[in-house]
Amino acid sequence: MKLSTMSRGEGTSTAAVLVDGLWRRLPAPDVGAWLQSGQDAEPGEPLTGWRPVNPLPSPGKVVCCGLNYADHITETGRDLPTHPTLFAKYADTLIGPDDDIVAPDDVALDWEAELAVVVGRPIHRAGRDEASAAIAGYTVANDISVRDWQRRTLQWFQGKAWDRTTPVGPVVVTPDELDPAAGVAISCRVNGEVVQSADTRTLVFDCAALLSYISTFTLLRPGDLVLTGTPGGVGMAMDPPRFLADGDLVETEIDGIGVLRNRVRLLA
Amino acid sequence: MKLSTMSRGEGTSTAAVLVDGLWRRLPAPDVGAWLQSGQDAEPGEPLTGWRPVNPLPSPGKVVCCGLNYADHITETGRDLPTHPTLFAKYADTLIGPDDDIVAPDDVALDWEAELAVVVGRPIHRAGRDEASAAIAGYTVANDISVRDWQRRTLQWFQGKAWDRTTPVGPVVVTPDELDPAAGVAISCRVNGEVVQSADTRTLVFDCAALLSYISTFTLLRPGDLVLTGTPGGVGMAMDPPRFLADGDLVETEIDGIGVLRNRVRLLA
Repeated sequence: MKLSTMSRGEGTSTAAVLVDGLWRRLPAPDVGAWLQSGQDAEPGEPLTGWRPVNPLPSPGKVVCCGLNYADHITETGRDLPTHPTLFAKYADTLIGPDDDIVAPDDVALDWEAELAVVVGRPIHRAGRDEASAAIAGYTVANDISVRDWQRRTLQWFQGKAWDRTTPVGPVVVTPDELDPAAGVAISCRVNGEVVQSADTRTLVFDCAALLSYISTFTLLRPGDLVLTGTPGGVGMAMDPPRFLADGDLVETEIDGIGVLRNRVRLLA
Repeated sequence: MKLSTMSRGEGTSTAAVLVDGLWRRLPAPDVGAWLQSGQDAEPGEPLTGWRPVNPLPSPGKVVCCGLNYADHITETGRDLPTHPTLFAKYADTLIGPDDDIVAPDDVALDWEAELAVVVGRPIHRAGRDEASAAIAGYTVANDISVRDWQRRTLQWFQGKAWDRTTPVGPVVVTPDELDPAAGVAISCRVNGEVVQSADTRTLVFDCAALLSYISTFTLLRPGDLVLTGTPGGVGMAMDPPRFLADGDLVETEIDGIGVLRNRVRLLA
């Protein structure tokens, strides 16, 4: 099943489900609210002239995992981890699948293509099986990072929590249709050039492991979002380092989910 | 002016203002909601038999600063910072001024007495003066930390985001009554023994500086909370390190604001 949040203009939005190639309304303003409502996916009226926006505009928690692909860990010069490296970002960072990535023109902006997992039911201190069963679906994200701020101190948060920098979408695919642990291609292109290309099979901590681990210390609720980390190929690891320029087009793709196409807008 | 959120039992709460030694109702369920409403502090009926609870039960953002007192930085073996070290925690971590601190019995729990600043109006990319004018008031917090989890990886978040571990309160004192930059005593006692004792005058980054810095990357809204860091004297820096045991009483005090008294409950 594919779920999305659709809009036909400012201030309008609805959750939607794809049925025989046609998006149909679900009775909630967005996928997060629909998951919280606990309702069945009973398709309503068809939605023509609507476009997919950020499926999860207001998750209470957005938890991110760093250093979770073996090749990206290697490019940062580190050993394979025994525990996931976690940090938080805010719902305010999230934008839709074709929104502009907006940042000041004096920061070092970098890409991080990521598989994101959407929580479908409340979990607290959940084992692997319970965590796995709580997965509502998967979506694409790009944890666009402000590298100079990320590296100012020991804690990455201030490089990761810039409003309107993290595209999410275009749809949420339920686990019956997609199994990232079995292997799904993930990639990032900048102005058409492939900069990241990997397989979710090589995640050190898979989605169920991450949800279980996080639920040890905090309650996860329907609509919460966990970004699972980025593979190798980020700009800061290039020689010389490469950062995003005004007007660059960042495309983030996961097979079976879809593509985010976001233009970089750097403001004075 | 002193503000609080008062309750007389499960499910009841109201914002309140202290007038001539008597708490009087404000027209909102808590201080955060009252700040968001933008209303004047028009005192209503007196509240007898009500007790102060967490003044800010649901801030959208709780940003914490680490390494912000010169003596605590020294005890962790670091140089004075040029930028604030920031991380996030969730509203779910917050508890009231006399609630139990609840954690599993197999973690290394440590105290961190902190001055917390409450945001009173929206700020984005605010300079120092605008940030200063956006301060609604000050309260006491203890950024109780799970040290073994905090140290598992490079990022502290997983040791800082445990539900029901961070006491806040008992009141919010407005800036006309309290000036932390001029110097206010802050202390932490464990079972009556003073373990932390410092002055907010020695903060490396003061409240206005922190709000201004954070507002560079994310919008701060009324009711958001910024924890300003802890002074020297934490348990992990003791020789041998000392952690909290089941039944320990943690008292966190800031002159002119009040005292948090929280019992530690470690659960199997």
